[in-house]
Amino acid sequence: MSAMNIPQSSFPRIIIIGGGFGGIALAKKLSKKEVQVVLIDKHNYHTFQPLLYQVSTGGLEPDSIAYPIRKVLQGYPNFYFRLAEVLQIDTGKRKIKTNIGEIQYNYLVVATGSETNFFGNKNIKTLGMAMKTIPQSLNLRSLILENFEQALLTDDLHERDSLMNFVIVGGGPTGVELAGALAEIKKGILPKDYPDLDTRRAQINLIQGSDRILPAMSEVASKKAEQFLEGLGVHVWKNVRVTDYDGKLVTTNNDISFNSETLVWAAGVKAVNIEGLDAKELLSRGNRLKVNRFNQVEGFNEIFAVGDVAQMETEAFPNGHPMMAQPAMQQGEHLGENLVRIVENKALKPFKYRDKGSMATVGRNKAVVDLPKFKFQGVFAWFVWMFVHLYFLIGFRNRVVVFINWVYNYIRFDREARLIIRPFKKIHQ
Amino acid sequence: MSAMNIPQSSFPRIIIIGGGFGGIALAKKLSKKEVQVVLIDKHNYHTFQPLLYQVSTGGLEPDSIAYPIRKVLQGYPNFYFRLAEVLQIDTGKRKIKTNIGEIQYNYLVVATGSETNFFGNKNIKTLGMAMKTIPQSLNLRSLILENFEQALLTDDLHERDSLMNFVIVGGGPTGVELAGALAEIKKGILPKDYPDLDTRRAQINLIQGSDRILPAMSEVASKKAEQFLEGLGVHVWKNVRVTDYDGKLVTTNNDISFNSETLVWAAGVKAVNIEGLDAKELLSRGNRLKVNRFNQVEGFNEIFAVGDVAQMETEAFPNGHPMMAQPAMQQGEHLGENLVRIVENKALKPFKYRDKGSMATVGRNKAVVDLPKFKFQGVFAWFVWMFVHLYFLIGFRNRVVVFINWVYNYIRFDREARLIIRPFKKIHQ
Repeated sequence: MSAMNIPQSSFPRIIIIGGGFGGIALAKKLSKKEVQVVLIDKHNYHTFQPLLYQVSTGGLEPDSIAYPIRKVLQGYPNFYFRLAEVLQIDTGKRKIKTNIGEIQYNYLVVATGSETNFFGNKNIKTLGMAMKTIPQSLNLRSLILENFEQALLTDDLHERDSLMNFVIVGGGPTGVELAGALAEIKKGILPKDYPDLDTRRAQINLIQGSDRILPAMSEVASKKAEQFLEGLGVHVWKNVRVTDYDGKLVTTNNDISFNSETLVWAAGVKAVNIEGLDAKELLSRGNRLKVNRFNQVEGFNEIFAVGDVAQMETEAFPNGHPMMAQPAMQQGEHLGENLVRIVENKALKPFKYRDKGSMATVGRNKAVVDLPKFKFQGVFAWFVWMFVHLYFLIGFRNRVVVFINWVYNYIRFDREARLIIRPFKKIHQ
Repeated sequence: MSAMNIPQSSFPRIIIIGGGFGGIALAKKLSKKEVQVVLIDKHNYHTFQPLLYQVSTGGLEPDSIAYPIRKVLQGYPNFYFRLAEVLQIDTGKRKIKTNIGEIQYNYLVVATGSETNFFGNKNIKTLGMAMKTIPQSLNLRSLILENFEQALLTDDLHERDSLMNFVIVGGGPTGVELAGALAEIKKGILPKDYPDLDTRRAQINLIQGSDRILPAMSEVASKKAEQFLEGLGVHVWKNVRVTDYDGKLVTTNNDISFNSETLVWAAGVKAVNIEGLDAKELLSRGNRLKVNRFNQVEGFNEIFAVGDVAQMETEAFPNGHPMMAQPAMQQGEHLGENLVRIVENKALKPFKYRDKGSMATVGRNKAVVDLPKFKFQGVFAWFVWMFVHLYFLIGFRNRVVVFINWVYNYIRFDREARLIIRPFKKIHQ
C-alpha cells in the first residue's frame, strides 16, 4: 500500500483534484480504461451549483442538488475516492501533499473550480454572504428567514426596513436568479407567513457594475431579463459598483447607498489555486491556469487543468471559456479521451468548444435563452430552462424529487423548505 | 402593541410553548375561535421525530421531515408565531420571559416535549451522539460517513474496527430502527461505496438494559424484532447497561466492553422544564409535570401541559401516557376543545386516551405492529408502518417526496442522501 492507502498498480495513476462538473465528466470517461484514478475532493458529494439559489430561497432541499461522489464511481474498477484537502503540489517530484498524506501521480488533473472573488475587500468578505457551496447557501437561507423573524420584533422602522432590504451584488445568472426568487417570495409567501408585518416594504436590489445585466448573454436577453425583474418589483441598478459594507450600510461609487442587513456577493469568481502550482507566470486573469488546446498547464506535459480553473485562449474565446458548467463538462470529457490516447500512445486531439447556448431564469414562466442560432424569452424559455437543468442534474432520484418540488411550487406558489435548520445569527443577541 | 410586538386583543391570550405534535394539534383546534394564540418555538419548523433515524442514515432529506410552523398557521386569524426561547415562567404575574421579551398570558400551555436523558453521565453527554433534533441527526449522518472515510486510511486494524463499530444504547423504537437501518447500509451500500475496505467487519451493536427490546410493545413484537435484527446481523445485547464512554471505549455493568468511535444514546428521555414551573412538587418521573384529567398543571387553573412534558396518571397508565406522538396529539386536540369550552364558560371534559397501537420498523419488509386487538409482523406490518407514517407527516409535498424516496430506496437498495454537508469531525485532525 502506498500513502493514503491506495495500492500500487501497473496502470498509470491519474489524480483528479475536484469532483465538480469537469472532474466528474473526466472520471466517467476513464472508467474501464487501463488507468488507476484517484479522485480527491473536500466534500463527499458533487454540487449542482446552478441550482444553489433555489436552496437559498427554500425552493429545493440541499440534498437534491448534491450527489455522493462514491456513488458516481460505483462499479468503476481501479477508482479511488479520497475525502481530503490538497495542500501542495510538488511538480518536481510529481506528488501532492494532502491533509491525509502524500501521493505520487503520473498525470495530474486540476479541476478545483472557482470560489467567490471579493477583489480584496475584507469587509464584504466578512460581512457579506457568498453562494458557491451548499453550506453557504444554507447560511443564506437561514439569514433571510431570521431577518424576517427579527423584523417582526422591532418598532424601529429604519431597522425593520434594513432587515427586509436585500442587496444582491452582481448581475450575472446567479444574481438575476436569486433576485427573481426573492421577489417571488416577497409576493407569494411573505404576506401569508407574516400577516403582522408590512412585507410590501421588503426590497430587492440588484446591483450591476456594467450597463446591462447578464452581460455574457445577448442584448435582447439582458433587456428582457431586466424587464422581467422590474415586473417582479426588483430594483435593478446598472453602472453602480459596491465599494464597501459595514454590516448595515452598503456604499457604492455613486451617491446611492443602501441600508441593508443582507448583502449577497455574486459579483465575481476566481480560480482556486494550490500551492506549488500558483506561480505568477502560470496564471492568467482571475487566477486561472494557462492551458494549451490539450488542457495541459503551460510548461508541463503531465499536468492538466479543466473547467473554471483553466484558461484556454482561443480565437473565439481570447480570455478563455466562460466559467460555467458547459465548458467544464466538455473539457473534462475531452481530456478523458486525450488521457486514454496518451496511455495508448496515440496523438492528442485539440479541444473544441461546442457552444450549446446559455440561459437564465427570473421567475415562474420567465426565462431567457440564447441558443447559437435562436434566442427566445418567456414561458417556453422557462420550460426549456427547467428541462435542461433536470437533464444535467446527476441521479434519477434527484431529478424526480426536484421535478416534484417544481411542480408543487408552481401549482401552489410555494417554497416549503423555508427552514432555519442551523441558525446563521441568533435573534436579538 | 405589547411586548414581542403582539397586539392587545379583546380575546383571551393563549400562549403555547412548543410546536411539536401536541402544540400543533392544539393550535389547529383553536383556529377561528375567539382566542388570541401565541405559539413560541425555538425552531421555525415542526419536526417529525419518528423519522429522524432515516435522516441520520441518509434515507431521507432533513427538509422532508420538517415543516414550517408559519405555514401551518397560515390563514388562522389572531395567531402569532414567535421564534424564541422561553427562559422563565412567572406564574404569579402570569407572564413569560423569553430571549425576545416578556409577554402576559391568560392561559399557558406547556408543550415543550422531551430531550435526551443522559442520567447525569457527562462523558456520554459530551462524547455520545443524541438523535432528538434535525441538527443532531445530521451530525450523526456526518459522523457515520466520516468514520468510513477515516477507516479507509488507517492500517491499524484495531482503529479501523473501532471506526466501523456502532454502539446504539437503548432498545426502544429509535434504537431498533437505527440499528436496522445501519445493518441495511452495511449490506447494501458499504461494499459498493468502499470496495477497498473490508466492510464486512463493520459491527452494529444494540444494547438494552432490560430483558427484551421494544419493552413498551408486546412480547411477540419484541421477540420478532430481535429475530429481524439478528437476521440483519445486528448484535443485540440484553440485560446490559452502558456505564461510561471515553470516546473510544464503551464500558458496561458487565464484562462486555466495546471499542467504538460512535456511541448513539437512545436510552432515555426526560421532559423539558422551564424555570418558574420546575418546582420539585410539580414534577414526577422524568421531570414530567403532573397534570389532572384536563391537562391542568397541579395547582394552576390557567396552566396546562400536553404530550411528553405532561404526566397524567390514570388507571390504564399509572405512570402517565407513553412519551410518543399519539398521546401528545390526542392531548393537544382534547385540550384545544377544552380551552374553547373554558372561553365559552362550559364544563371541561376529561381526557381519555384512545390507544391506536404502536409499531416499529426494522428494515425492508420487516416491521412489528401491535394494534389493540391484533398483532402482526413482517411485510404487511412494514407496509402499514409506511402508510401510517406518511399519513401523519405534515404537508402534501413532504408526503410525496418521502414516498418517492422510499420507493426509490426500496427498488434500488439505496440511500442517496449520504452527504457530509457539515462535517462533524475533521478527518485526521
